[in-house]
Amino acid sequence: MAEAKALTPRATDFSAWYNELIARAQLADYSPVRGCMVIRPNGYAIWEQMQRALDQMFKDTGHQNAYFPLFIPQSFLSREAEHVQGFAPETAVVTHGGGKELEEPLVVRPTSETIIYAMYAKWIQSYRDLPLLINQWANVVRWELRTRLFLRTTEFLWQEGHTAHATEAEAEEETLRMLGVYRTFMEEWMAMPVVTGRKTDSERFAGALRTYSCEALMQDNKALQAGTSHNLGQNFSRAFEVTFQTASGDLDHVWNTSWGVSTRLVGGLIMVHGDDAGLICPPRLAQYQVVIVPIYRSDEERTTVLEIAERTRKELAAAGIRVHLDARDGMKPGAKYYEWEGRGVPLRVEIGPRDVAAGTVMLARRTDGKKESLPLAGLATTLTAAMESMQRDMLETARARREANSIRGATKKEFLAQLDAGGGFIYSGFCGRGECEAEIKEQTKATIRVLPDESFRSPEVPTTCMWCGRPSVTEAVWARAY
Amino acid sequence: MAEAKALTPRATDFSAWYNELIARAQLADYSPVRGCMVIRPNGYAIWEQMQRALDQMFKDTGHQNAYFPLFIPQSFLSREAEHVQGFAPETAVVTHGGGKELEEPLVVRPTSETIIYAMYAKWIQSYRDLPLLINQWANVVRWELRTRLFLRTTEFLWQEGHTAHATEAEAEEETLRMLGVYRTFMEEWMAMPVVTGRKTDSERFAGALRTYSCEALMQDNKALQAGTSHNLGQNFSRAFEVTFQTASGDLDHVWNTSWGVSTRLVGGLIMVHGDDAGLICPPRLAQYQVVIVPIYRSDEERTTVLEIAERTRKELAAAGIRVHLDARDGMKPGAKYYEWEGRGVPLRVEIGPRDVAAGTVMLARRTDGKKESLPLAGLATTLTAAMESMQRDMLETARARREANSIRGATKKEFLAQLDAGGGFIYSGFCGRGECEAEIKEQTKATIRVLPDESFRSPEVPTTCMWCGRPSVTEAVWARAY
Repeated sequence: MAEAKALTPRATDFSAWYNELIARAQLADYSPVRGCMVIRPNGYAIWEQMQRALDQMFKDTGHQNAYFPLFIPQSFLSREAEHVQGFAPETAVVTHGGGKELEEPLVVRPTSETIIYAMYAKWIQSYRDLPLLINQWANVVRWELRTRLFLRTTEFLWQEGHTAHATEAEAEEETLRMLGVYRTFMEEWMAMPVVTGRKTDSERFAGALRTYSCEALMQDNKALQAGTSHNLGQNFSRAFEVTFQTASGDLDHVWNTSWGVSTRLVGGLIMVHGDDAGLICPPRLAQYQVVIVPIYRSDEERTTVLEIAERTRKELAAAGIRVHLDARDGMKPGAKYYEWEGRGVPLRVEIGPRDVAAGTVMLARRTDGKKESLPLAGLATTLTAAMESMQRDMLETARARREANSIRGATKKEFLAQLDAGGGFIYSGFCGRGECEAEIKEQTKATIRVLPDESFRSPEVPTTCMWCGRPSVTEAVWARAY
Repeated sequence: MAEAKALTPRATDFSAWYNELIARAQLADYSPVRGCMVIRPNGYAIWEQMQRALDQMFKDTGHQNAYFPLFIPQSFLSREAEHVQGFAPETAVVTHGGGKELEEPLVVRPTSETIIYAMYAKWIQSYRDLPLLINQWANVVRWELRTRLFLRTTEFLWQEGHTAHATEAEAEEETLRMLGVYRTFMEEWMAMPVVTGRKTDSERFAGALRTYSCEALMQDNKALQAGTSHNLGQNFSRAFEVTFQTASGDLDHVWNTSWGVSTRLVGGLIMVHGDDAGLICPPRLAQYQVVIVPIYRSDEERTTVLEIAERTRKELAAAGIRVHLDARDGMKPGAKYYEWEGRGVPLRVEIGPRDVAAGTVMLARRTDGKKESLPLAGLATTLTAAMESMQRDMLETARARREANSIRGATKKEFLAQLDAGGGFIYSGFCGRGECEAEIKEQTKATIRVLPDESFRSPEVPTTCMWCGRPSVTEAVWARAY
């Protein structure tokens, strides 16, 4: 394996850094199919950890998994007027099957509301069948013109939750519950702080009543929409005639929600935590939380060191730590350090002949590069504690960085200056008018990420719109975004 | 929920029984898209258990997961001559993307050899990069004319392993290792005995050197091809120029294998174990291994019984048992029994007021319907043992049934009589000629399922082909198949 040159520093070219990091860590690769990526084993392992954690959170909140068809009859997409407008331009269309032209073309699902609510119409008869709480892990396709690995690809992997409820209040509660699940996952697992809130009409999901979002700030001070949760109202249940008999015997349309996160989260993880040496993976999501690198020169040293290293590996594994012993021969320890640093493994344990003699190991932390000698005895406990504090520190570091790059109560002048200075989250008064929002987007490329939830609202919000000076009706969080 | 009428008995109409069971247990449903099914939560939960077990077995044998594009450029499929012949007629083709006609149509993957080996050509340079052991969990599409839920659908879920090796011997070893993993999974998890062996050329995977298969016998005495493992030789590495520098500095093409099982396994599970009351799920794969049904009449009884039931549920869950407490109000215990029987839950625990008083529970086994009163104390241990013996018994029952429906050393007359009598596995001498095989298939619809592996070969094999009377070169296992 040829040793690659250092990554372009983030400060020099963030976009080049991002692409080089992905190549260096072998997370993903471009494919021969336009806009489609290959998720390589190192990248897929992170996605698997994310899936596992999220799946458990969905099940703990009463959801079950199911699987719906990849193909959607083209006519289905058209039944909800906003939905077809939003998605039809970016679909891939199957026109031939089994060597023949199809009577009705099939759209490769860009999202599954239409096919799923068509099934719910069959399954739901009575209020007793509600709520129906289903999630699907699947691939979806949106014909993107400008693609970036993980962040925007023609095909991507995601989960989409689709629920049906008897009342509007229950649907709203579910929408916000899942927004909360996403926020918890992003903070506690990804160590990625997010601002949550409602999207304006122009950024709403096509077909939704209200869209809520988790927005994270990347190290280049651009925002990433990391997960969305939609209250669909009765828009789809009317379009697909999903009705139920209420407890009092009336017939009503169900109230739906949908919510999703995707492999885009891997991109977010890279851009929030990575440094100029490569990826830094939060311990809770790392494929390998600890890598053991044995150090030896002679065959005799090799035998002694590998024996202790293997015993240590077993002890850590038995304690539930995801640990890998890198016993590759013919590769220098330094080259191994370099490789595992690039891949973002949180903790590295070095064991050499002197460590064996002294009953110690050398621990190196990926976050700050600090090294310290530790007793071998009780290592599992020490490392577990080290991972817990690293997980907390990573969240706090990211949160502090975000806050250092957020300004509140911005005037138009401050807003423009902040964008000139590189971006970040800009909180301001907003008149609530789409015209104002559109004009700002056109002139500055900044968009309203969310109208922030109460817990993110500024103590004091200006009484006027920072752009047009009309009275402010709500606070808005602005940023340039991926 | 309206109570459905009894299932058509297996003996009356196996096919009707199969479809009705799937509807009754809510395992899957037809979708509005031709040939595509919806896997409902009860069915998907079984697939999830299968995935979990298989995924661990793949990882334990050194494989990693990755993800490759859904779309394959049409020209890729054509690079391996047999492969395109085998798959081109049954592909779905995307001709339009983002509102425009594509320059080159994209095939929705029917299997991923071509796109994966195109990537391997980029990733593999040296013998140090080998073996490359990758698995993918994905959806694939084959345009089937006659579809059946789980068994044959246009879209299905599967895993496909794709490996690259430095030598032919290693590739053959891997091919057989994964065949063994499948056999172990089918026997130990699904309690479904299989015969393993090699496919004849006419049943070989399009593009493979050799295909090996696991074949199971269903209760209607038809065979199900449950999983296949292919030694691809250098067919794809030549087509996609996947070369590597050997240890001695030469350039060689890698040796590939691929292997897969799909949601078809859920159909196999139904047809091997189900009875006229519904599904019977082997304990190791059941979403719920134990369901607790509380029995009460008065509110007072309800309180007492539910308290013990909930405590029992917690104890069983703490012991690692997948348990569900069916506390639905307004539904009679009998209706609950009926529903959980249909869904195949292995063990049912009934708790009524008299049980509470006596410190007992009533246990009902799904396999034989037997009920017995058990002490509440130590229930987790009792149930764990009951599940282990049920898992073993289910395998033994299925194996005994298969052997009772297998004949060995068959003459042509016995072969025809056995098929007339309903089928089963027919072991015979075989001349090895494709003409003979084709004639038999045409006249009887029976095919060679496998040329059996040594451990399945008959103690004595006739010296002549049962059909044409020429010298036999190998034993063959014949059956009509799904």
